[in-house]
Amino acid sequence: MEEQSSPNYTIGMDFGSNSVRAVVVNTQNGSEVGVAVYDYPSGEKGILLDPSDHNLARQSPSDYLGGTLETLKQTLQLAQANDPDFSPERVAGIGVTATGSSPLPVDKENRPLAFREQFAKNPNAQCWLWKDHTSTMEAHRITEFAKKDRPQFLERCGGSYSSEWFWSKVWHCANVDPDLFSAIHSWVELADWIPSVLAGVRSPEAIRRGICAAGHKALYSADWGGLADKEFLERLDPRLADLRDRLFERTYDASQCAGRLCQDWADSCGLPTGIPIAIGALDVHYGAIGAGISECSLVKVIGTSSCDCAIANLESETPVISGICGIVESSILPRMYGIEAGQSAVGDIFAWFVERVCKGNADTHAKLTEEASSLKPGQSGLIALDWNNGNRNVLADPLLTGLLVGQTLHTTQAEIYRALIEATAFGARMILEQLESGGVTIDRIICAGGIAERNQLLMQIYADITGRELRISSSSQTCALGAAVVAAVCAGTRKGGYDDFETAQQAMTSLSEEAYQPNRENQAAYQPLFEIFKTLHDAFGRNNEPQSLGTVMKTLLELKQRARVHSTSK
Amino acid sequence: MEEQSSPNYTIGMDFGSNSVRAVVVNTQNGSEVGVAVYDYPSGEKGILLDPSDHNLARQSPSDYLGGTLETLKQTLQLAQANDPDFSPERVAGIGVTATGSSPLPVDKENRPLAFREQFAKNPNAQCWLWKDHTSTMEAHRITEFAKKDRPQFLERCGGSYSSEWFWSKVWHCANVDPDLFSAIHSWVELADWIPSVLAGVRSPEAIRRGICAAGHKALYSADWGGLADKEFLERLDPRLADLRDRLFERTYDASQCAGRLCQDWADSCGLPTGIPIAIGALDVHYGAIGAGISECSLVKVIGTSSCDCAIANLESETPVISGICGIVESSILPRMYGIEAGQSAVGDIFAWFVERVCKGNADTHAKLTEEASSLKPGQSGLIALDWNNGNRNVLADPLLTGLLVGQTLHTTQAEIYRALIEATAFGARMILEQLESGGVTIDRIICAGGIAERNQLLMQIYADITGRELRISSSSQTCALGAAVVAAVCAGTRKGGYDDFETAQQAMTSLSEEAYQPNRENQAAYQPLFEIFKTLHDAFGRNNEPQSLGTVMKTLLELKQRARVHSTSK
Repeated sequence: MEEQSSPNYTIGMDFGSNSVRAVVVNTQNGSEVGVAVYDYPSGEKGILLDPSDHNLARQSPSDYLGGTLETLKQTLQLAQANDPDFSPERVAGIGVTATGSSPLPVDKENRPLAFREQFAKNPNAQCWLWKDHTSTMEAHRITEFAKKDRPQFLERCGGSYSSEWFWSKVWHCANVDPDLFSAIHSWVELADWIPSVLAGVRSPEAIRRGICAAGHKALYSADWGGLADKEFLERLDPRLADLRDRLFERTYDASQCAGRLCQDWADSCGLPTGIPIAIGALDVHYGAIGAGISECSLVKVIGTSSCDCAIANLESETPVISGICGIVESSILPRMYGIEAGQSAVGDIFAWFVERVCKGNADTHAKLTEEASSLKPGQSGLIALDWNNGNRNVLADPLLTGLLVGQTLHTTQAEIYRALIEATAFGARMILEQLESGGVTIDRIICAGGIAERNQLLMQIYADITGRELRISSSSQTCALGAAVVAAVCAGTRKGGYDDFETAQQAMTSLSEEAYQPNRENQAAYQPLFEIFKTLHDAFGRNNEPQSLGTVMKTLLELKQRARVHSTSK
Repeated sequence: MEEQSSPNYTIGMDFGSNSVRAVVVNTQNGSEVGVAVYDYPSGEKGILLDPSDHNLARQSPSDYLGGTLETLKQTLQLAQANDPDFSPERVAGIGVTATGSSPLPVDKENRPLAFREQFAKNPNAQCWLWKDHTSTMEAHRITEFAKKDRPQFLERCGGSYSSEWFWSKVWHCANVDPDLFSAIHSWVELADWIPSVLAGVRSPEAIRRGICAAGHKALYSADWGGLADKEFLERLDPRLADLRDRLFERTYDASQCAGRLCQDWADSCGLPTGIPIAIGALDVHYGAIGAGISECSLVKVIGTSSCDCAIANLESETPVISGICGIVESSILPRMYGIEAGQSAVGDIFAWFVERVCKGNADTHAKLTEEASSLKPGQSGLIALDWNNGNRNVLADPLLTGLLVGQTLHTTQAEIYRALIEATAFGARMILEQLESGGVTIDRIICAGGIAERNQLLMQIYADITGRELRISSSSQTCALGAAVVAAVCAGTRKGGYDDFETAQQAMTSLSEEAYQPNRENQAAYQPLFEIFKTLHDAFGRNNEPQSLGTVMKTLLELKQRARVHSTSK
């Protein structure tokens, strides 16, 4: 029988777009004994915006530090209140996961430039949130250069380097704010910076960077000796080549430690000094671990946008799947290829429709969901493309926009709402089919995230449109839970954790009993709609081949009529 | 100096979709001295609907009779109150115009079948309002038969016979309600039935039918000896061939009389017995007269839908303009080709968006109009097709639907609202260009109708997109005024009227001082958007050639960026 005071808990922290959450997890059974959430106080829902440029999205680093302190203190208190066995001394380690690419500029002491008085209000000195799209032009130029000189870079990121990613953002900063840029010593991904802060790292060069963010967002690969090479960067902009010298040569995977909790933070939070801090990674990658990812399974984290993760054995050849965002060694689990894809907007599209177009609120979502539930596939006569925020996969083109077709004078809000849900489901199916046609076997789909947990209508539509059973992660904090799993492996069996991920996942993660099964009738009814979706997808999304669209509206009307007859004949 | 009691006034009546209005007009100067409006009391805003079939739209004939009596009595009272010179004895004649094709079934005594007790609640026994679309299948079959055997029929109606028209509706009645159909003696267009009632006509065979409704909606032409021939109808359905025998052989134009006011109606209203009742016609055709139509001018009546009218000299060859609804001899002015085109929905689209999608009201229209006014062409990044109610011209295809492309997560209500206005303007330009390419010269555009009068934003957008000066009719009752002009010609100079239309129009109609001039900068900015509109129009509306749409969204984003730069640099 184990001692009452032996380490038996880890903490997972998840730095999201609007808030940070910390969860205390029992490493033996995965129970979440304390969950604290801290809403970032700055800007609009934690995001610093620029009314004159809707592409700008930044975050204040002080929100991160305040959120770290508050959530750690609170979650420990809650865990003590909830679990008589818990005490802070029993915490074996901390794992951190964050949005990305969310790089922030730091000085030689690893302090954010935003903390200097002269830059305190400068948006460029803050953290550049993943959804910042100010650097479209830089992304385009990086893509063009890479196409010509470094095609291997693009093979790993779906054929196009994004404005959401590290080098685009850093370069844009250099272009629009050279004074600030010259005062910056280094740039650190949020997922790396938080562990470095907790570990008391006082120099950017000493930060142990995760392979996940680096590999996905900063063109890092062992295949070409680390970050994008200096010659390439020199040609883009000599300042980027200079910066490269002050970044990093190697990276670390989820099995490794970023450092140990420093005295200051240990004292402030009431945690044991010196417990391991795991390597940080992007939220969905640790979310995939928290959802129980394994070979042949796809984890879909469905929220404002969607991220799809799969893994493939390293012994196979490096997979190259056209139009798929990122394929990076060890980005999820060590010694496995991590494959990431996703949709630029899912919940964001429904929120846009409800808030901007219908001027509604949470009640409106509920009402429209109820009304939309009574519709049959095809009954609205509508079809949409889910590109209101561009297309991440499989077209990897941010310069795409939404489309809705089939409106009559009788089209209702609920019909449009359902068409938008269906559009994201068709988009999800496009990715699924692309992965499979690229040789990734997918036997099991696990969904996680707020939408997967709560939106039964959407989940059923996804099951009907993909024709797959959809399982749900039983944790509501999949990303934070994944970070806690990583922390448990980082701590190791001797300290109440695990020496391998499989055992850790078996103990700490689980799936909900509830699963969504495709309704075969709906699945069949959606097939011709998916064909129309693909036609529109290729017509508007690919520049290469003319499409015949003269039958689109007529087919939609036929399917509408069929659905109507079908639904009244019942 | 003329006598105080000499006839100097006529009455124009306009039977619209929701109400009837009667206006007393001074024949010497066109002043409207009394205007009475009667909202049809039955159904929803006067329209009998079927919740289970949104294609159904009928009207109760008793509403017409009640409306005729009430508006005539009221308008006479108002005229007496407003104009000391007026007295009912000075009314020289009555003109009638109505929506159409709105046929109603009557018995041998010219009484509506709806007046019989057993059919009183039967929607098929009522008047089939123009916008009834229950007979899509019949329209399709008529078109198919005509394509094969009577291509000349289709040449005059844009290549496709509509479900809104006489034979489709009559046949649909026969198909869905054979019992009722066999009790019907004849079918009369509302525009013909009202004059026949006022004239006390007791037999359908004695009704003098207008060439306008017959020519546009019932396949009537002197070229093939009247109505669609019996052989053709026989092949469609023998019951239609039988019906043809009980319809009519000849028709009358606007210079002719339908009859004289009968004693009963004269007594009920307080009008002189025996004054002439002019031949009835479809509302926009008399509206065109009321707006001052002449050769080389186009009259656009812009309301829930739009109707465009032009005339061409009979000495020229019969014009055949592909995709243009109707080209009918003397349908507007005698001895001129009347050319009618239009858009199936204009105001209806804005109403749909505001009421159905935004759940707003009249205030919402005002607010969105104000916000939309501050946008530059292209600034929204949106483009729409105005096909929510199908496309009347130039595709003549009811089986088309709306489309909106270019949505982001920031797209606002006002941006969509403006995009819908622009879509109707692009649609208007398509018709204008089709008319001109078909050899119809258009030197002057006169707009009338509620939207033309009140919606300055729309009118300016129309001027910018067409690149034309747009004049506005100074009457708010253009259709009723046109009917009054026709009544004045019917009365003739000896009775205070006129012997020709030109003189009558000069005296009785006028244009507002206000005119919309194209803003050259906006006109240029709209040109690339119109090109995109045409691309989408042809891609979705024509079945013949595959289109490459891969640049559509990118061009819209470029134009959006350009508009944004342009508008902030000012």
